[in-house]
Amino acid sequence: MTLAEKIFSKAAGKPVSAGEFVVADIDRAMTHDITGPLAVKGFNEIMEGKEEKKVWDPEKIVIVFDHQSPADSVNAAQNHIYLRNFAKEQGILNYDIYEGVCHQVLPEKGHVRPGDLIVGSDSHTCAYGALGAFSTGLGSTDMAAVLATGKLWFKVPETIRFNIEGKLADHVYSKDLILHLIGDVGVEGARYMAAEFAGETVQHLSVSERMTMSNMAIEMGGKAGLIEPDKVTEAYLKERIPDFKLDSNWKSDSGAKFKEVRGYDISELEPQVACPHNVDNVKPVTEVAGTKIDQIFVGSCTNGRFEDIKIMMDAMGNDPIAKGVRLIVVPASRTEYMKVYRAGYVETLMEKGAIVESPCCGPCMGGSFGRLGDGEVGLSTSNRNFQGRQGSPKSFVYLSSPATAGASAITGEITDPREI
Amino acid sequence: MTLAEKIFSKAAGKPVSAGEFVVADIDRAMTHDITGPLAVKGFNEIMEGKEEKKVWDPEKIVIVFDHQSPADSVNAAQNHIYLRNFAKEQGILNYDIYEGVCHQVLPEKGHVRPGDLIVGSDSHTCAYGALGAFSTGLGSTDMAAVLATGKLWFKVPETIRFNIEGKLADHVYSKDLILHLIGDVGVEGARYMAAEFAGETVQHLSVSERMTMSNMAIEMGGKAGLIEPDKVTEAYLKERIPDFKLDSNWKSDSGAKFKEVRGYDISELEPQVACPHNVDNVKPVTEVAGTKIDQIFVGSCTNGRFEDIKIMMDAMGNDPIAKGVRLIVVPASRTEYMKVYRAGYVETLMEKGAIVESPCCGPCMGGSFGRLGDGEVGLSTSNRNFQGRQGSPKSFVYLSSPATAGASAITGEITDPREI
Repeated sequence: MTLAEKIFSKAAGKPVSAGEFVVADIDRAMTHDITGPLAVKGFNEIMEGKEEKKVWDPEKIVIVFDHQSPADSVNAAQNHIYLRNFAKEQGILNYDIYEGVCHQVLPEKGHVRPGDLIVGSDSHTCAYGALGAFSTGLGSTDMAAVLATGKLWFKVPETIRFNIEGKLADHVYSKDLILHLIGDVGVEGARYMAAEFAGETVQHLSVSERMTMSNMAIEMGGKAGLIEPDKVTEAYLKERIPDFKLDSNWKSDSGAKFKEVRGYDISELEPQVACPHNVDNVKPVTEVAGTKIDQIFVGSCTNGRFEDIKIMMDAMGNDPIAKGVRLIVVPASRTEYMKVYRAGYVETLMEKGAIVESPCCGPCMGGSFGRLGDGEVGLSTSNRNFQGRQGSPKSFVYLSSPATAGASAITGEITDPREI
Repeated sequence: MTLAEKIFSKAAGKPVSAGEFVVADIDRAMTHDITGPLAVKGFNEIMEGKEEKKVWDPEKIVIVFDHQSPADSVNAAQNHIYLRNFAKEQGILNYDIYEGVCHQVLPEKGHVRPGDLIVGSDSHTCAYGALGAFSTGLGSTDMAAVLATGKLWFKVPETIRFNIEGKLADHVYSKDLILHLIGDVGVEGARYMAAEFAGETVQHLSVSERMTMSNMAIEMGGKAGLIEPDKVTEAYLKERIPDFKLDSNWKSDSGAKFKEVRGYDISELEPQVACPHNVDNVKPVTEVAGTKIDQIFVGSCTNGRFEDIKIMMDAMGNDPIAKGVRLIVVPASRTEYMKVYRAGYVETLMEKGAIVESPCCGPCMGGSFGRLGDGEVGLSTSNRNFQGRQGSPKSFVYLSSPATAGASAITGEITDPREI
C-alpha cells in the first residue's frame, strides 16, 4: 500500500486501494475567514429543521482568521463576527486574528499527526503532508458537509512518487526544489494524485523546509503532498504533542503500486524562479536575473517561518535595501514572529526601512495590504503568481526562495543568491 | 497682534489683521496618498499649455504615503505610482510608504518651524501649531494652486484663546484636555478661527502632548491650533534642525485682540471620552465606564508616539489583554516605532497577543486594516469618531487617551485609568 492508501484505509475503516470510492472519517477540519462563512451557511442549510444544530465534533474543528486579518473591509469584519459567533455557539477552537496563517498555526499548535485525514477549505491545506497527514483542500460546500457529519467521500488517489537524491547546493533550498518539480511535471502533473516526496534529499530537510514542499503540491495538481514521517517529524511533534509516538506504519510499503515514480538528482540544481503568470513557468534564476523589482514579499504559509526569514536575512547581510524596493516581511505566525523578533530581525528590518507586519497572509493573495499597481513587478516567497493575485492584472509576480528574495532586496532586481 | 496675525503678516509681506483678505506665501506644502493624486491632477490642469510644468519650489513640498500604506487596493497602488512618478519628475521629497503618518513625519524630520505658514491636503494639518507654525488643511484643488504658485489667499483668522491653568491630575493627559475643550465649545466653537492654547498647563506639556492638542483643533472647527513656541519647542527643534534658534517674536502680544478668551482650571479634570458619533459628544470616563469594547486602536498622528504607547503600557501593567478584545497598536512613524521597540514594548505587546503594525494611519479612518463590523464597539486614540469612519456605519467609536485605552485593554470595557 501507498501511504495515501493506508491513511484512507484507516479513515474508511477497511483496506482500500487507489481508484476506490470511499466515505472517510475526517480527523480534523480547518476553515478560515474567507471560506468559513460560506461553509457555515451551508452547514446551517443542512441543519435546517433539525432540533439540534450541532457540528459533528467541535474538538476536531479549528478556525483561523488570516486572509483578511485584521479586517480589511466591512465585509471581512462581518465575516469575522459571523465565524466568531459560530465558534462560540458550537464550542469550536477559534484562533481568531491572533495567531497567524492557518497552515502554520495548525501544525504548530499540535493539530496535525501522521496518518490523519485532514480537510481544510483552503487549497494549500496539502501543507500538512509534511508531517505525514493526508490533508487536502475543499470547497465550502464540501466543508459544510464535513462540519455536519465528519465524513466525506473521496476517490482514493493514486500516488506519484518523487524520489529525490543529492545534496542541495549552497543557497539552494526546498523552495527551489519544489519549483523545479512543478516546472518539470507542470500544473496538472499530479492531478488528483497524492504527490509523495521521498529520497535522501527530503530526509535531510527540516520540517519547515518540508512544509514549503508539501504546501505547493496543489500547484502541480496534487490532492496531497506527502512526506514519510521520520525522526525529524517525531522531534517536531514531540515538542507540540507531549505523548506523541511515531508509528512506523505511516509510509508507503516497498511493494506499493505507484501511478508513476520519478527520479531526480538535484545536486546541480540552481535557484529557481516561477515567472508570471503560472507556477509551472519555472526558470533557473540566472535566466531572469536583472529583472527590476518594485516590491518583495517574504512571508506566507510557504516561506514565512523563522528559518525562511533567517535565510533572507543572511542573504541580505549588512547591506541596505535597494532604493525604491518595498520589502514587506510578515512572519507566518505569532510563534514564528517571536523567533524572528528574538533573533533581532524585526529591529534590523525596521531600521533598514522594511515593512514588518503582524502575522497574517499579507500580500500573498492580494489581501489587506501590499497590492501591486499596473506594470509593477513583485517577487514573493509565497505559492502563487496567478495574474492579478497580488493586485493589478497588469502587475507581474515572480516566486522564489527567501534567499533569492533577500539577494534581490539589496540589488533591486532579481538576483542569484550565489552571486552576492 | 495675535500669533496668527504675525504669521500672516510675514507671509503676506505686510502687517495684516484678522478679517483681512491676503495672498500669502506658503513656507511648506504637504500632500499624501489619498488627496495627493487629485492635487497633482489639478496642478497638471493649471499647467496645461505651459512650456515648463514645474512646481513653484520642490524643496518646499513634501509627500508622505500613510493613509493606504502599504497599498490596500489596486487603486491605492495606482495612486502611489502616480505620486511617486510626480515626485521623481519634480524633484520633490517623497517619504513614500516608509516613514509613517504625515503629521508625525513632518515635524520629526525638521520640516516645521515656528512662524511658518504650512498647508497640507489633510484636515489634521493643524497639528504643526504645536510648534508655533500656522498650519492648516486644504482641499486638493487649493493644493493644486499652491503646487503651481506657492501662494494662496486667506482671510486672516481671528483667534480664540484658551487660557488653561492647573496641573493635570494623575492619569489625565492632554488628550483628555483637548476632548474637554472640544466638548465645551462644540464642533463649531472655533470655526474659521485660530485656536490658541495657552497658560501654565500648556507650558508644562511635552511637544508630543502639545501635538495631540493642536492636531484636534480642527475638531472644534479651528483653522489652526497654535501654541506659543518656548524652550520645550526649542529643545525639540534643535534636535532636528541643528541651526535652529528660537525667535521670541512668535507669540501673541499682550495687547493682541482676541475674538474670545476662555479660561479653564483643569486641576479637577477627569479622563474624558468622546462618544459616538461626534467628537464633541464628550463625557467623563466615569459616565461611560463599563461599555464593552471589541477593538482598541492605539496609534495615529493624535496619539501614536512613543510617549503615548508608554502611557498605554503603563496603564496595562503586567496584565493580559482581556479575552475577546483586539488590541491594534501602530506607532505613528518609523522613528517612534524604533523607540517603542527599544523600550521592549513590541515584544511585550506581541507576546500578549496584540497586533503591532508598521507605521501608517492604520484603522484611524478605516484604511488598510482593523475595520469594525455591525454593532462592534471600538475605542481609539485617534481624532475622529464619525459614523462609519472605522468601518460599518453600524459600528461605534469612542475616543480616549492612551491611558484609558490601556486600562480598557485589560478589562475589555471602557475603564477609568485611575481605577486600575
